[in-house]
Amino acid sequence: MPPAGSAERACQDDRVLTFRLAVRSDVPEILALYADDDVSRARDGAVSETADAAHWAAFEAIDADPGNELVVAVDDDGAVVGTFQLTFTPSLSRGGSSRMTIEAVRVRGDLRGRGVGRRMMQWALDRGRERGCGLAQLTSDKNRSDAHRFYESLGFTSSHVGMKRPL
Amino acid sequence: MPPAGSAERACQDDRVLTFRLAVRSDVPEILALYADDDVSRARDGAVSETADAAHWAAFEAIDADPGNELVVAVDDDGAVVGTFQLTFTPSLSRGGSSRMTIEAVRVRGDLRGRGVGRRMMQWALDRGRERGCGLAQLTSDKNRSDAHRFYESLGFTSSHVGMKRPL
Repeated sequence: MPPAGSAERACQDDRVLTFRLAVRSDVPEILALYADDDVSRARDGAVSETADAAHWAAFEAIDADPGNELVVAVDDDGAVVGTFQLTFTPSLSRGGSSRMTIEAVRVRGDLRGRGVGRRMMQWALDRGRERGCGLAQLTSDKNRSDAHRFYESLGFTSSHVGMKRPL
Repeated sequence: MPPAGSAERACQDDRVLTFRLAVRSDVPEILALYADDDVSRARDGAVSETADAAHWAAFEAIDADPGNELVVAVDDDGAVVGTFQLTFTPSLSRGGSSRMTIEAVRVRGDLRGRGVGRRMMQWALDRGRERGCGLAQLTSDKNRSDAHRFYESLGFTSSHVGMKRPL
């Protein structure tokens, strides 16, 4: 379990953010963040904001899996302003250290470019260290060049090609 | 659990391969495959072929985790000729479907370019469908251009940048 509700002050945006594991009642707000994304829209068409049975089953699977943490950043009004998912993967490669994969990073539209994403990712990297991971990894759509610069500023290297295939 | 020991005949290499979950006694052969890799050597220096406590702990963690499958391809002499790791990640994005991440793909040096890797990846994609995943994904070092063409021939698209960072 991550530390419960560690609050800290933003550099650029002055709201206090609390990071915690998502609970069931956060799901609609998380889906709204996924839907509010140009790249996802271009890829998948309109993204549903309404949770259906598959979404609820997915939430229960994430919640029950110690290898996955769906995290939300919540402001002091209780609104979900950002989210990301961490997957912790044990591995025999790289000396037997686990790796942390970061997926589905989203910041609410009106807060982008104000340091919220940076605080989210710094929290994620700390969480990876806390769980003993030797490596953090993510893939970012080739069309998100701003995101690549952002992640490079956090110490990530664009060393790999990210390949995907529908099943 | 994947289907136990599905055997099939190769297109180019004529040996019968059996795919199964790795067991503890496979670990030294898996580490030998990881060590026999130019990109890993360039990245990590000499890769240890000897299993130490971290490797055994990692194996036990993988083996105990229903979200991870470490797979070996074994020939009819019982030798491990290839390996890959599958991670199944439940997700609220893309309609609530799970995704399968493929990591640590290795084929024994004397068998490369003979269809073994293709059979391994076709098995992996079938396994992802069997587990109900909507997406398969992997990252491949930018220096492995042959690998990128190989994965593209299997239906993967180089749609993303793969970013990594030590922790």
